Amino acid sequence: MISQTARATTPQSPILLRETLGNIAVLTLNRPHARNSLSEELIAELHASLKEIHDDSSVRAVVIAANGPAFSAGHDMKELTARRTDADRGRAYFSQIMNACSAMMQAIVHLPKPVVAAVQGIATAAGCQLVASCDLAVASEAASFATPGVDIGLFCSTPMVALSRNVPRKQAMEMLLTGESVSAAAAQAIGLVNRVVAAGTERDAAITLAQKVALKSAYTVKLGKEAFYRQAEMSLADAYRYAAEVMTENMMARDAEEGIGAFIEKREPKWQDK
Amino acid sequence: MISQTARATTPQSPILLRETLGNIAVLTLNRPHARNSLSEELIAELHASLKEIHDDSSVRAVVIAANGPAFSAGHDMKELTARRTDADRGRAYFSQIMNACSAMMQAIVHLPKPVVAAVQGIATAAGCQLVASCDLAVASEAASFATPGVDIGLFCSTPMVALSRNVPRKQAMEMLLTGESVSAAAAQAIGLVNRVVAAGTERDAAITLAQKVALKSAYTVKLGKEAFYRQAEMSLADAYRYAAEVMTENMMARDAEEGIGAFIEKREPKWQDK
Amino acid sequence: MISQTARATTPQSPILLRETLGNIAVLTLNRPHARNSLSEELIAELHASLKEIHDDSSVRAVVIAANGPAFSAGHDMKELTARRTDADRGRAYFSQIMNACSAMMQAIVHLPKPVVAAVQGIATAAGCQLVASCDLAVASEAASFATPGVDIGLFCSTPMVALSRNVPRKQAMEMLLTGESVSAAAAQAIGLVNRVVAAGTERDAAITLAQKVALKSAYTVKLGKEAFYRQAEMSLADAYRYAAEVMTENMMARDAEEGIGAFIEKREPKWQDK
Repeated sequence: MISQTARATTPQSPILLRETLGNIAVLTLNRPHARNSLSEELIAELHASLKEIHDDSSVRAVVIAANGPAFSAGHDMKELTARRTDADRGRAYFSQIMNACSAMMQAIVHLPKPVVAAVQGIATAAGCQLVASCDLAVASEAASFATPGVDIGLFCSTPMVALSRNVPRKQAMEMLLTGESVSAAAAQAIGLVNRVVAAGTERDAAITLAQKVALKSAYTVKLGKEAFYRQAEMSLADAYRYAAEVMTENMMARDAEEGIGAFIEKREPKWQDK
Repeated sequence: MISQTARATTPQSPILLRETLGNIAVLTLNRPHARNSLSEELIAELHASLKEIHDDSSVRAVVIAANGPAFSAGHDMKELTARRTDADRGRAYFSQIMNACSAMMQAIVHLPKPVVAAVQGIATAAGCQLVASCDLAVASEAASFATPGVDIGLFCSTPMVALSRNVPRKQAMEMLLTGESVSAAAAQAIGLVNRVVAAGTERDAAITLAQKVALKSAYTVKLGKEAFYRQAEMSLADAYRYAAEVMTENMMARDAEEGIGAFIEKREPKWQDK
Repeated sequence: MISQTARATTPQSPILLRETLGNIAVLTLNRPHARNSLSEELIAELHASLKEIHDDSSVRAVVIAANGPAFSAGHDMKELTARRTDADRGRAYFSQIMNACSAMMQAIVHLPKPVVAAVQGIATAAGCQLVASCDLAVASEAASFATPGVDIGLFCSTPMVALSRNVPRKQAMEMLLTGESVSAAAAQAIGLVNRVVAAGTERDAAITLAQKVALKSAYTVKLGKEAFYRQAEMSLADAYRYAAEVMTENMMARDAEEGIGAFIEKREPKWQDK
């Protein structure tokens, strides 16, 4: 039941692995030698995979995991630095990378399927942002989280967009200003991850969590995930107006009719295959 | 000192009980056989009671409690399903119910008196929303909370409007996507309830909490509660501009003059009776 | 290395002490006999000191501490009450004070340097707001926090602007409606302070925390702090657009070039002195 396709150009070391476990897609960052830093190519691979998954009705949920000791060290500093010799000292390239990375992170938010991070090691800067951008996150007790850009003169400004929408203000500020890492347990306490599990079990735990959501109606999950992030940016009155419309549309859908019928008749629902 | 009036149509089983304990109104959901699901009639009863309380200066605070093992199971699925035989397959009715329920929830937010939930059992979907919509909530250690609409194909979209304004993003998303329930202790940790008490004492604890607020100046509580929810939707600069105006108006009021005077003179304040 | 200048008019009892510890400015509220209440003069002193620090490149971080048993009791009620004999019963004066206090609190948010509160005792009303307005806060285990304006008929409307941007909704509402104080440990649990330390060590702990941030590039901290509060008020898409621009500007700066270079070369960075 496991198929594995590598999207990367060098077959001997694909930088992003894609496995299919039933209706779960597992994307594994595979640049362990570079601490899974988000190179231009890896950002593009992730975004391309998310686009494929977006349109692939056989996939119901996504897990993002990583190989090696680190989850992800954020941007690839050597790659960025190499462009300081450009005529514009790299400005155009840096802007392109930051926007490409932000677009990839937002593709997670806009994907109509749940995305679960499986964090086995340290997640820093854009690596921490990747975790914060997922809908759900499972961390190994060996994992840790940091936004240490401030230590190298490059404040984690794009990571903080995702971080500050997960974590209370003072706790986010402490991570951003000190650059210090927080443990998995602390990350759970401040809202950055959902669950902390024994080291080595985080991938399976994330897959189990993804499978649980994958059993629901794909239509319903899609509708709800989109509505969640949209209403979060509205006033209370607007959010209720919008959510009441979403509920009405949802009630008219085949999967709600089936699900409510099954609930009343005390049987298992059968969801539509789309 | 206890008066009890039933607003419901069938005197033998009013679906909403209203008791008056001094200046506290206790509204008790009383459809235990239907797990206190929010039928059209119960939504209307709740809204009508809130409107009466809005204009009743003898009431200073409200407690919302429930009879039976469940606090509330959310919408009444049998009632909704019965309207699928309408000419429009129920669309107009569903829209009406969702908007009526949203209006009732917002009536809690806009009530110029504090509302405290007393949660004795499981609060699901719109039942969980009812707890989230109250200003304060006391839960029995036997209580639990869930937004399990996703299990029946009907995402808890309106409940999430209230839930996501109480609970951090990833924790709210987990409840919404998995449908799993969280314990009272977990609900407290994520911000959904204020206090967890021994089973059977939650009603008294909620009344005690309501009475504490009812001892304050009704004018001041009204002013502050309204300002709280309004400023929450503003930018920092706008919120300060608005709050500074509110403070100035508050300073000019008789109850502030009395309260500050009593504070300086180290005596008990005597609030105006309105 | 310690210089101390008193800004107040009476040399024998300056109401705000300013010490310089290396590149850390420590502002100490010094009206212990008045529980460090924020009189018109103390608000003005704080604001003036923040303005000086804003333009003083030798200062890299600020600690706000207090002398005596209380951190700050909020506004000076005797001073406010004295103006009730004004022709307008004090309205113009109250408005002026509330706006002056709000402007001072926002000057902390807009200061391009981190501000750390060192809370040794009870912080109430605008005193609690002062803690909430700081970027970071260290509390003694003997500290406590309250917004008890409701007890004297004057709802803590301006304090709640800062409080509700630190603390989850129901927990903020409980503080505001009941006026009850929360312990340092509870304040940490709800996000109001970053760390709780042994009584008597909070000032040193806050200075140590400030010094840690002061070792970073001042340019980077300034850029990041400003971006943090700006993006917090934007939609996700706008926040990413803005933050990607900030990141690009940051990459072009000398301190990022130096910091990233030092990181790649595994040496200590040398920041520019401005």
